[in-house]
Amino acid sequence: MNDPIEFHKLRNGKIQVMPKVKLKDKNDLKLAYTPGVADVSLAIKADKNLSFEYTNRSNSIAIVTDGTRILGLGKIGPEAGMPVMEGKALLFKHFGGVDAIPLAISNTDKGFILSFIRAIAPSFGGINLEDIESPKVVEILKELESSLEIPVFHDDSYGTAVSVLAALINALKLVGKSIKEIKIVVNGAGSAGYGIVKLLVSFGAKDIIVFDTKGAIFKDRDQEVKTNIIKREISEITNKDQLSLSIEEAVKGADLLIGVSTKGAFNKEMIKKMNDKAIVFALANPIPEIDEQSALDAGAYIYASGRSDQKNQVNNLLAFPGIMRGLLDVNAIRVNDNALIAAADAIASSLKGDLDRFNIIPDIFSQRSELALNVAYAVGRSLIKDGLARRRLSDEDLKAKIADKLKLSFDIEDYILDKL
Amino acid sequence: MNDPIEFHKLRNGKIQVMPKVKLKDKNDLKLAYTPGVADVSLAIKADKNLSFEYTNRSNSIAIVTDGTRILGLGKIGPEAGMPVMEGKALLFKHFGGVDAIPLAISNTDKGFILSFIRAIAPSFGGINLEDIESPKVVEILKELESSLEIPVFHDDSYGTAVSVLAALINALKLVGKSIKEIKIVVNGAGSAGYGIVKLLVSFGAKDIIVFDTKGAIFKDRDQEVKTNIIKREISEITNKDQLSLSIEEAVKGADLLIGVSTKGAFNKEMIKKMNDKAIVFALANPIPEIDEQSALDAGAYIYASGRSDQKNQVNNLLAFPGIMRGLLDVNAIRVNDNALIAAADAIASSLKGDLDRFNIIPDIFSQRSELALNVAYAVGRSLIKDGLARRRLSDEDLKAKIADKLKLSFDIEDYILDKL
Repeated sequence: MNDPIEFHKLRNGKIQVMPKVKLKDKNDLKLAYTPGVADVSLAIKADKNLSFEYTNRSNSIAIVTDGTRILGLGKIGPEAGMPVMEGKALLFKHFGGVDAIPLAISNTDKGFILSFIRAIAPSFGGINLEDIESPKVVEILKELESSLEIPVFHDDSYGTAVSVLAALINALKLVGKSIKEIKIVVNGAGSAGYGIVKLLVSFGAKDIIVFDTKGAIFKDRDQEVKTNIIKREISEITNKDQLSLSIEEAVKGADLLIGVSTKGAFNKEMIKKMNDKAIVFALANPIPEIDEQSALDAGAYIYASGRSDQKNQVNNLLAFPGIMRGLLDVNAIRVNDNALIAAADAIASSLKGDLDRFNIIPDIFSQRSELALNVAYAVGRSLIKDGLARRRLSDEDLKAKIADKLKLSFDIEDYILDKL
Repeated sequence: MNDPIEFHKLRNGKIQVMPKVKLKDKNDLKLAYTPGVADVSLAIKADKNLSFEYTNRSNSIAIVTDGTRILGLGKIGPEAGMPVMEGKALLFKHFGGVDAIPLAISNTDKGFILSFIRAIAPSFGGINLEDIESPKVVEILKELESSLEIPVFHDDSYGTAVSVLAALINALKLVGKSIKEIKIVVNGAGSAGYGIVKLLVSFGAKDIIVFDTKGAIFKDRDQEVKTNIIKREISEITNKDQLSLSIEEAVKGADLLIGVSTKGAFNKEMIKKMNDKAIVFALANPIPEIDEQSALDAGAYIYASGRSDQKNQVNNLLAFPGIMRGLLDVNAIRVNDNALIAAADAIASSLKGDLDRFNIIPDIFSQRSELALNVAYAVGRSLIKDGLARRRLSDEDLKAKIADKLKLSFDIEDYILDKL
């Protein structure tokens, strides 16, 4: 099949709910529902943390969007956003064994979205913010992270940042440079740029300069930098000399150029000005800032993009299912940068074959179980160490638990799809 | 297994999310997610009704509670309410093939709950209000029914009313009386009493008197009757002579006594005063208003209760899965009394064996598929006739569609549970 409309019509959507327990007779009914369930409810009332054991909370997240920034399609509303959210839920399950509930809502008010997510938090082990317009989404993320006791994941920033960092870790090994000494230029200051810059700084980057459509970002540039939470934070941790320069000037001697902007934003002249063994990540979707051949011709040593039809695909799918698996399996309270860096390291180390300039990133399809396990384990272990896990398992038990959950989920899924 | 806690711990809850489509390679990914999904989103943006075809909306509902009236346990909060909501979701799937998403929320404000449900409506084909305190829940129900374009179902009122009416239809056949001429006494004026009274009046009942803990309900009784939406409406459609009498006086010559109150609320003296061939439905849970033997000894001809260990079990499970199946399969805009009456008729007609005083209600476990099909078909056909269906199928197509959906759902479920 090649028609996405037909694909979606065939079964009316992409996900369904299924039982985890049998219900064959009145005795089963008494255990699963009344009167037996009352004992379960009263036990949770006495200790809310038991909701992670007695309900599906420890495997389920809500995917929340307000329909304001669906893919590159903009503000198309909740109904139109739903196929994307169901798609994301499908990916969470297929690649991470995570039960994700898509909630596309019709209210775009920031205050309402905050109240909405706070209200549903008791039903879920985590929240995934998806395709909400920027910078509102980052404001929401920060407010929730400081008030909720379950992790809030924002794939546009965290997932992208982890995939980029995973690719960078391997790229730096190849070029023999250290994160502390490289000069980095980032073009694009939306959610993705924000997430990448924050994580690179946490990872040790000292010299980053970030551009938006108005030029280099620095503290006193304009009112936008003062009021937009993303740009204000970027201005505080990058561009240490607070320079107002053009991107053509900034790329001179740069070691790493990252685009999370639009097609055509980079050209050969820019690449030529970069340092030896230049690394170019052109991540605009579906068409990169510069194509592979042009970048290589201009002297890029390593090139990566978001395209699935080329080598070195930087793909959030490497990151978010495994990260969420790890967050859930330790009943995490919050995600932090250490956990994200651990995830990136795990992805980088999962590479198959010899590391070379055209092979810096693992393939998600051929390494599904392995990536989910490695990433989830790294994340879970990091959170236990940092005191952000409700469930503190030994390394061995954690790894076994994750492996079991993944195997059961993948087996059942194969089984069902075989039947459909 | 006999321990509900162990039952719930075994698999950490009772429901999970599963794919409906394969995702084997990059081509599948392009159809299910980016870039193909953009075509699907844009098609829905142009015509929102396509969300019922291209997403799981036409098979999915939200179960919403604010944790204020969970079972008979009262206000125990959303976490503690969740096992009950997951249980309800399990019942919706197992008995109706319906994908139900439990959302137990931490905000109990009526205005917020209204905004919450309006916000999630684009993601679902229906809403099921569950275990929200009364009369707030009825106020919410009415406001939503007049503003949403998907059906809002309130099982405590609608489901109970349909099961009671189904039992009554068969009981009246046995005693040879007509709904128009019988004298009815209802004890209990919560959500269940409200739903029952409203539906009985729609079905043709002319003489009903309703009691709450303060006595008979009539218009000028007190401030509560004036301000409580449930009691005000009851006062307007019952007790036509507006009598202030005791329940002992009211049962004199009554043909039908319904209890939706508390154990021990009825006694033999009351039953003795009833008319010949008296019908007693003692529905308090888990212990009825009067036990079977006492009621029969005192002269009741037909006795029914909510108990699963006795004959004549009045059980919402007979009603809600099939009703929701029918609502979804015609993409209903709203449920109405005609559809509820059609559902009750379908349940009554599905009775197996000879109708007698100890066999007036079908058994849900031995007639799962048949009940779901009959009820869903009756509901769907009634809504199409009343112009409340988006999808207007012929009788034959509707029946075939429902049968197909049920078969696929039940087959897959058996298949999974076999694997677990």
